Amino acid sequence: MSDIIIDFDRKQRCGVEEAILCERKSIAQIESIIELGLTNQVRFLFTRLTKEKWSQLKPTYHHHLTYCALSNTAVLGEVYKLQRQEHQVAIVSGGSSDTGVCHEVLTTLNYHGYSASLYEDVGVSALWRLNNALEEINKAKVIIAVAGMEAALPTVLSGMTHRPIIAVPTSVGYGVSEGGQLALHSCLGSCAAGLMTVNIDNGFGAACAAIKLLNAFS
Amino acid sequence: MSDIIIDFDRKQRCGVEEAILCERKSIAQIESIIELGLTNQVRFLFTRLTKEKWSQLKPTYHHHLTYCALSNTAVLGEVYKLQRQEHQVAIVSGGSSDTGVCHEVLTTLNYHGYSASLYEDVGVSALWRLNNALEEINKAKVIIAVAGMEAALPTVLSGMTHRPIIAVPTSVGYGVSEGGQLALHSCLGSCAAGLMTVNIDNGFGAACAAIKLLNAFS
Amino acid sequence: MSDIIIDFDRKQRCGVEEAILCERKSIAQIESIIELGLTNQVRFLFTRLTKEKWSQLKPTYHHHLTYCALSNTAVLGEVYKLQRQEHQVAIVSGGSSDTGVCHEVLTTLNYHGYSASLYEDVGVSALWRLNNALEEINKAKVIIAVAGMEAALPTVLSGMTHRPIIAVPTSVGYGVSEGGQLALHSCLGSCAAGLMTVNIDNGFGAACAAIKLLNAFS
Amino acid sequence: MSDIIIDFDRKQRCGVEEAILCERKSIAQIESIIELGLTNQVRFLFTRLTKEKWSQLKPTYHHHLTYCALSNTAVLGEVYKLQRQEHQVAIVSGGSSDTGVCHEVLTTLNYHGYSASLYEDVGVSALWRLNNALEEINKAKVIIAVAGMEAALPTVLSGMTHRPIIAVPTSVGYGVSEGGQLALHSCLGSCAAGLMTVNIDNGFGAACAAIKLLNAFS
Amino acid sequence: MSDIIIDFDRKQRCGVEEAILCERKSIAQIESIIELGLTNQVRFLFTRLTKEKWSQLKPTYHHHLTYCALSNTAVLGEVYKLQRQEHQVAIVSGGSSDTGVCHEVLTTLNYHGYSASLYEDVGVSALWRLNNALEEINKAKVIIAVAGMEAALPTVLSGMTHRPIIAVPTSVGYGVSEGGQLALHSCLGSCAAGLMTVNIDNGFGAACAAIKLLNAFS
Amino acid sequence: MSDIIIDFDRKQRCGVEEAILCERKSIAQIESIIELGLTNQVRFLFTRLTKEKWSQLKPTYHHHLTYCALSNTAVLGEVYKLQRQEHQVAIVSGGSSDTGVCHEVLTTLNYHGYSASLYEDVGVSALWRLNNALEEINKAKVIIAVAGMEAALPTVLSGMTHRPIIAVPTSVGYGVSEGGQLALHSCLGSCAAGLMTVNIDNGFGAACAAIKLLNAFS
Amino acid sequence: MSDIIIDFDRKQRCGVEEAILCERKSIAQIESIIELGLTNQVRFLFTRLTKEKWSQLKPTYHHHLTYCALSNTAVLGEVYKLQRQEHQVAIVSGGSSDTGVCHEVLTTLNYHGYSASLYEDVGVSALWRLNNALEEINKAKVIIAVAGMEAALPTVLSGMTHRPIIAVPTSVGYGVSEGGQLALHSCLGSCAAGLMTVNIDNGFGAACAAIKLLNAFS
Amino acid sequence: MSDIIIDFDRKQRCGVEEAILCERKSIAQIESIIELGLTNQVRFLFTRLTKEKWSQLKPTYHHHLTYCALSNTAVLGEVYKLQRQEHQVAIVSGGSSDTGVCHEVLTTLNYHGYSASLYEDVGVSALWRLNNALEEINKAKVIIAVAGMEAALPTVLSGMTHRPIIAVPTSVGYGVSEGGQLALHSCLGSCAAGLMTVNIDNGFGAACAAIKLLNAFS
Repeated sequence: MSDIIIDFDRKQRCGVEEAILCERKSIAQIESIIELGLTNQVRFLFTRLTKEKWSQLKPTYHHHLTYCALSNTAVLGEVYKLQRQEHQVAIVSGGSSDTGVCHEVLTTLNYHGYSASLYEDVGVSALWRLNNALEEINKAKVIIAVAGMEAALPTVLSGMTHRPIIAVPTSVGYGVSEGGQLALHSCLGSCAAGLMTVNIDNGFGAACAAIKLLNAFS
Repeated sequence: MSDIIIDFDRKQRCGVEEAILCERKSIAQIESIIELGLTNQVRFLFTRLTKEKWSQLKPTYHHHLTYCALSNTAVLGEVYKLQRQEHQVAIVSGGSSDTGVCHEVLTTLNYHGYSASLYEDVGVSALWRLNNALEEINKAKVIIAVAGMEAALPTVLSGMTHRPIIAVPTSVGYGVSEGGQLALHSCLGSCAAGLMTVNIDNGFGAACAAIKLLNAFS
Repeated sequence: MSDIIIDFDRKQRCGVEEAILCERKSIAQIESIIELGLTNQVRFLFTRLTKEKWSQLKPTYHHHLTYCALSNTAVLGEVYKLQRQEHQVAIVSGGSSDTGVCHEVLTTLNYHGYSASLYEDVGVSALWRLNNALEEINKAKVIIAVAGMEAALPTVLSGMTHRPIIAVPTSVGYGVSEGGQLALHSCLGSCAAGLMTVNIDNGFGAACAAIKLLNAFS
Repeated sequence: MSDIIIDFDRKQRCGVEEAILCERKSIAQIESIIELGLTNQVRFLFTRLTKEKWSQLKPTYHHHLTYCALSNTAVLGEVYKLQRQEHQVAIVSGGSSDTGVCHEVLTTLNYHGYSASLYEDVGVSALWRLNNALEEINKAKVIIAVAGMEAALPTVLSGMTHRPIIAVPTSVGYGVSEGGQLALHSCLGSCAAGLMTVNIDNGFGAACAAIKLLNAFS
Repeated sequence: MSDIIIDFDRKQRCGVEEAILCERKSIAQIESIIELGLTNQVRFLFTRLTKEKWSQLKPTYHHHLTYCALSNTAVLGEVYKLQRQEHQVAIVSGGSSDTGVCHEVLTTLNYHGYSASLYEDVGVSALWRLNNALEEINKAKVIIAVAGMEAALPTVLSGMTHRPIIAVPTSVGYGVSEGGQLALHSCLGSCAAGLMTVNIDNGFGAACAAIKLLNAFS
Repeated sequence: MSDIIIDFDRKQRCGVEEAILCERKSIAQIESIIELGLTNQVRFLFTRLTKEKWSQLKPTYHHHLTYCALSNTAVLGEVYKLQRQEHQVAIVSGGSSDTGVCHEVLTTLNYHGYSASLYEDVGVSALWRLNNALEEINKAKVIIAVAGMEAALPTVLSGMTHRPIIAVPTSVGYGVSEGGQLALHSCLGSCAAGLMTVNIDNGFGAACAAIKLLNAFS
Repeated sequence: MSDIIIDFDRKQRCGVEEAILCERKSIAQIESIIELGLTNQVRFLFTRLTKEKWSQLKPTYHHHLTYCALSNTAVLGEVYKLQRQEHQVAIVSGGSSDTGVCHEVLTTLNYHGYSASLYEDVGVSALWRLNNALEEINKAKVIIAVAGMEAALPTVLSGMTHRPIIAVPTSVGYGVSEGGQLALHSCLGSCAAGLMTVNIDNGFGAACAAIKLLNAFS
Repeated sequence: MSDIIIDFDRKQRCGVEEAILCERKSIAQIESIIELGLTNQVRFLFTRLTKEKWSQLKPTYHHHLTYCALSNTAVLGEVYKLQRQEHQVAIVSGGSSDTGVCHEVLTTLNYHGYSASLYEDVGVSALWRLNNALEEINKAKVIIAVAGMEAALPTVLSGMTHRPIIAVPTSVGYGVSEGGQLALHSCLGSCAAGLMTVNIDNGFGAACAAIKLLNAFS
């Protein structure tokens, strides 16, 4: 079994807690991390934990973790720390296929003690949906815009609001859109000034960025 | 000198006339084609003829051709055939850097006897500009949408109009936008149903497509 | 469950109806959309609905939808609206491996009330097949050319007809052809002037484009 | 001459002012924008204005603009608006080849009324340089990390600070580093949670993002 | 000065003579190779020798070499060895922009003592041109098909003839065609069975392949 | 069921017979082609027919076809036409992982009435193996060199023999070698003059090329 | 069955023994190699032998081989040759997901008679872990640094030590990191002078390189 | 002017001295570094300093530096430190176009006090050249193999020697070879075990790697 060195003071040092990326980790590795958490009585956030892997964990661990099948995340310990402030983050998505990534954002925020409002399926092919939600969206301090395919949403939204926007491109689409490279480049190459972008499908990273922003200014 | 075989009945067979793509042709080749046109008393449209090449042609040819420096096109013979119908095509562009491609569309339409209306610099970072022009744009039968960078314009426009749209991605931009691949993929991978796309910077092709459409239904 | 906001007036605004792209949607999401359609008594077109997903839907929904296994599409409500005009569209394909995409075109046209003629397996490695069909193909107003691998068909056909052509590159092939990028680029970079191209395997988009054209001029 | 539509109320709507990207604009276009600014008595920020283009502008315009050769930017009107707060932004760069991008960040911040501290040449091949500067860097609210080649700087810095970091990959390097794609991907694919990234060499965009952040929380 | 080791018995061992690829060689290196040839009284074929480099060579060398500006080749010694057989190779090209590559094929064949017939500008956008030439083309034992852009010519020709075809993709085109990758992939991914392909713009290689074929069977 | 148009006179016209590429064809399509062959009493060669697909065909068809699991090919009718000449083709491969492609070459040659000699596992990491076989290999008129990974074999072999070589890159390898792009480019970009290359894993195409060569000169 | 030619004197000639890459080899091929080893009484190292393939081998072979599921390797014969010197190699990895590659390095070293120390999960997001281990790591003559995602570890480590470093990029990560291309380029394009890199996930190659180094100087 | 922080103790810490990569540095920056060196009386190695930039430096600096036009390097201070040991490194190259990179290796070795033997133009298209030099090459402890195009040289050489090989791919070639990506991948994906690779054209890095190896074991 390979050694794992948990970085227990990351929260102190970096402002966000360490999460366990389960992709490419074996069941044995994940279970030994759960044991480590139980022994040290610490909380852990597991990301990209597929339903297949979740179901292969020893049933006893299922009682200690809260699993979210929409976002492939699991939390060891309490899911939602006492929140500090309400609705400082708005999560906005282009289509209902982006819902998994939206919920990875939401789970990560909740895990760190933040709530968020969710505005799904307001993509640019029908702008009236985005216009209807705009006033509410603007009440948040930070907007996380989640979009796949040609990912025009963050660009268009950026022209309508003065709020800072963190864009999360998703791997939704086929042909030239497959894998999310187009959505990623669309966010980065946008004509709208000031968009900030994270990796494809990286809802966890976008939430951490938002938390660091909120920490920096509170 | 290499042989050149002009396809004089292309207009008859394919609905559009043959054009001379000057990129990668030597000055000698271009001049021999001009001679061929003068001898046969036919018109020719030259595309992607840079200012450098234009200035290297024998001065005598400058009198026979009309050169457009904005679009790098030249016409041998009359520039504008008697037009058949007015304003069936609207050319819409995202930013003023796309103006060269817009004028390649315009020149090609004019050369074939069609006029068009031009709506430049109405990109999505300031939607009020597009909204202001929308009623006028909708009066055309066909829209040609020219855009670089993240090229959100054709997608957004497609959600606002029932008119068919031919998208022309341009090579405007740097970093991930450089070369126009992002703009191209953005048009092809759009969430808006029914966008039709041509090659990067291919204003000539978009105009030919529009002409074929107008021919098919007139 | 994520929110879904159906754009019920898209037909009015954009000329084509909204379709439900099933790729990356969960069974629960698809079923809730079916419920939404049943409740509101509206028709829906589902695309890229694999046989696996179709078979996982609750059996009761199987009675309300008509599934086409060739094209991975399903229709909620009547499959074929009263057609307006006959044979305005010709669908032409290079090889029998393209048949799935051809039928996505056909289903989408039918769903919107248009019929079409289908000319399959007339690729350029045996031009006599295309020549044999050419007179019939030319009777349509618009041609949709479906081709994979090196996708020479749209280019060659474009040199033989004055009809506007919408090219649909397909992901048929292996090695350098795998995924359809070659077919896509072949259509876009064609020496034939005026080809219009849609995303790889995007039969739905090509049909929508044709419908918008027919609408614009009828 | 193509039409240009200036978006005068962008500052109001989006929190940052419109800038003029000079790449791919002709001298005539740039000069007509300067005229527009002079006529309307507004300030303008010009980016990616190379020394070649700058020297081709009519000499009279040279008196109205302040040109920065390091960053290829020019300002029409006063260069530095009355600043609101000091040292809220730290600009940190990997090597001295990144200095052009660093100064595009700085000019853009100054233009909008913000000052910033600059920490150059503190890349990870000699960590003592970064460690020496860390305490000072942490006094800023937001860090903009500029790096080319393998761009390890933003990742390493992110493990040392709780401040939010906006990463600007640069096109410095050759071979696999050429063009900045490696630096870009390194920032996006970083193991450090919460990095936010902008396009390659996009110092202007990073500054706008920082301004939006500072606006949101002030 | 770097050492150069000429492989004087390559003709004996491999069936074709060594050529000097001038790209990336300095003027000094090229001149020292000419000296080597003059000293040893051997012939040399220089390829990819641009007009710029040619004009920088010491004028005295201009008398010893025969330069072809169309194909950027030069021959030291007699240009055309006594030919063995006539018209065993047909060179067929899509457009007049391919003429440089066609002449690199021709020069290389001549240098090795073979003649060839040249059929230029017979691309697939006007099939009547190819049909007109087909009977003549079929008299050759081997066909070398030169084409850029979507490079449909080798595929279409392959469906019309039983002769072996060596395809030479060219870097003619822009946007998705730029650099010749599309033309290359089009030849390799062709639906026509039995096409053999060489590198982009590699007329020299195609000629060598044809020579090896003719050698193998004579 | 989609229409299939068999090109029965391809052998006459192009020198090789039509083969059925089974990838992306449904079981129903393959079975209908078998029926077509049985009805018309013609032979067919099926390529890229995986074991999974083969086992799903109706058992009755198993009696009419001869399946080769090594190369994923099947022949309807007699496998081996009366051969015309012996050992005109040598198939040489780099490693034992290339064996599937080697046998696709062999099956295709046999199907058309040609035999061939097979020299496997003689890659360049141990040159003595290739040297040992060289004299035998040189007895063939044409060499087909099959290699994956860095595919140095065709280049090295080309420097040792005067025989024409058709290179078949294979998709053997991982990391930078994955998918065969490296092997393909290695063959195309080889410093050895006169290599002819076919698509990745395209043993069928290489065999057809060889047959056309042998036909041209016999 | 295809022929396999084992290169029994590779150790003598090249300093490392031949290994059997099992990817793309059939079960039958692997079994025949085992037989060859048993018959000749030689040892063999099998790499990239997945658990699926391992379990499909005839059970009798399971007794002759020692399988390591962490690294997908198997050894025929004694696993660990009598070692020559201790701890000349340090294996350092960024995260626990890299453990498979680390153990491929270790197994290959052991197979050739070398031991190594393993320092896992000391990536740059928490530099204290790397600092804690540095003194121990420096005791080795050669460092093998294994890292995925943005792979900053080899670069940072290279700035802290005078030991030669062989970098092994891994395919750990998603989005822009997927497949390991980013990690590979990060090692190659590093600002740290003197990093040596092997293929993605190529632990076997890194170990062979280290062995050759140790051989050269012992 | 941007700040530059020279890492004066890099030699102590990392075993090699810091070099100044001149690409993307302005003349002013380079001159200020020369001043820094003169003031501190230290030596500096400048790499990728083109002839254009060299000639733009103030003439006074020309007296303090030794410029090598073959390799685009310059040395401030003594060029060649007292050498420690002779001929521990062999530099082997495929063709005479690689000579610039070979001399960057040589200059860097000399600058650090090492000599090396140079074997140029011994590529694999004529193996007798490599065989002739092999005995001499094997006398070195470390081999640096420099090759462009398909870069088969390092692979073939690796099968002939037990010496460790550092491969330097070069950007020599056109079409698929252009830019050196093919050469790079060829080295990384080689079937020869134990090749170590550096960035394209990175002769400096290869020399540093060799120096670190020689340091580690001396």
